[in-house]
Amino acid sequence: MSQKAYKSGSSYPELKQDTLRLYSSRICPFSERVRLVLAHKNIPHEVVNIDLKDKPEWFLEKTLGKTPVLQLSEDMYIYDSGVICEYLDEVYRGQGSLQAEGYHKAKDRNLMDNFGQITSPYHFIAFPPRTEDSNDDATLANKIEQIQKGFQIFNDELAKRDSQFFGGNVPGMVDFLMWPHMERIPALTTLESRVEFSKSRYLHLYFWWWMMKDVPAVAREMEDTRWHLEIFKRVNEGMPHADYGLGE
Amino acid sequence: MSQKAYKSGSSYPELKQDTLRLYSSRICPFSERVRLVLAHKNIPHEVVNIDLKDKPEWFLEKTLGKTPVLQLSEDMYIYDSGVICEYLDEVYRGQGSLQAEGYHKAKDRNLMDNFGQITSPYHFIAFPPRTEDSNDDATLANKIEQIQKGFQIFNDELAKRDSQFFGGNVPGMVDFLMWPHMERIPALTTLESRVEFSKSRYLHLYFWWWMMKDVPAVAREMEDTRWHLEIFKRVNEGMPHADYGLGE
Repeated sequence: MSQKAYKSGSSYPELKQDTLRLYSSRICPFSERVRLVLAHKNIPHEVVNIDLKDKPEWFLEKTLGKTPVLQLSEDMYIYDSGVICEYLDEVYRGQGSLQAEGYHKAKDRNLMDNFGQITSPYHFIAFPPRTEDSNDDATLANKIEQIQKGFQIFNDELAKRDSQFFGGNVPGMVDFLMWPHMERIPALTTLESRVEFSKSRYLHLYFWWWMMKDVPAVAREMEDTRWHLEIFKRVNEGMPHADYGLGE
Repeated sequence: MSQKAYKSGSSYPELKQDTLRLYSSRICPFSERVRLVLAHKNIPHEVVNIDLKDKPEWFLEKTLGKTPVLQLSEDMYIYDSGVICEYLDEVYRGQGSLQAEGYHKAKDRNLMDNFGQITSPYHFIAFPPRTEDSNDDATLANKIEQIQKGFQIFNDELAKRDSQFFGGNVPGMVDFLMWPHMERIPALTTLESRVEFSKSRYLHLYFWWWMMKDVPAVAREMEDTRWHLEIFKRVNEGMPHADYGLGE
């Protein structure tokens, strides 16, 4: 299936029986979480890309209208990247579980409750809202402080776990849920140089970043910093971006 | 252990070995979720009540400072009512799981993503913030509309499931997570008569309410509408409330 995004006016691509389908967007970090789990667990599936700026009518009718959505059959849909990833992990157990058990699973969930400290300022800095008070220096400085604290939390936790990945010696659920936003951090620090993500400040998390990018599923799904910077620009300037870089 | 709440100036109650401890508040619906699961699964534990208006110093030092917290040992804590309930359910499997599996588990999680449509306006109406624009009629009307929509979502889902409980013929995780806020709805409709929770409007959810209140764990943990109304009043007027009704 082509990576080109479905837009308004397109026809619904009929679902073949027993095909797991992901509605995704190439620029959406939450969709990438699911693509990573699908790739890592080697789960057969198809991806239908959606143009988030110009969504197909059938997508809005059949689903809640946001990516990612996992479609199991004509009327079975699962929403929310975290829920989808856990579903996939639990149903495709044969390929090894990404989740810890008992206390450690609970602690992983508690840890991820902090991830908004990274995603929320990330989104504000990468895609500044165009309201009057949002661009003043104090608001921005506050967001920058927030994301630095977010990095610190995850850096400290990794130091405490004393392992290469949050999942231990191999990447687990926390690693894959975190990666898509973290993949975009070098682009973010290029866009806004006051955001710091450095080896000297976050040794453990910085090293984690370099280990993660070589995990096969990540290497297969990730885009480089130049690509992300171009997406930031296109989204902020209202230019088309869903098919950026795909060629004709 | 007394139900009386620990306050600032109190000493840390030493933890006995192999004792599961819940830091709870009698007025906190999120704490009640955990108490319901503990009671329903008959899990041995102790409850340490915390005065949320006057928290003990040791509670603020040892934990993140919000109830509920589950303490497993001197330095093992689990936070977040949803995470704690799932932990308990998964670790105490012998007593039957409260959670569905696979697709149905994912759908339960997706369903609970909507529960903020009830909890958020509930909180606004029960404990109106004291800011200038929060008490105007338009804001309140908007919150009322939101909670009615929330009731509708859960009523429709229950109709679709065609069962007495969200968990089927017996209550499951969704039922116990929902109950504590729903328990307070009759008090809310008394406080604010424009909120409607009636048999004629929400047949399935209304009937669910009456079935739920007779579930043994619920019957044991719930307080009546008069009690909740008194708590609303005391919280809003800044009066002591942690030990309300306990006697000397």
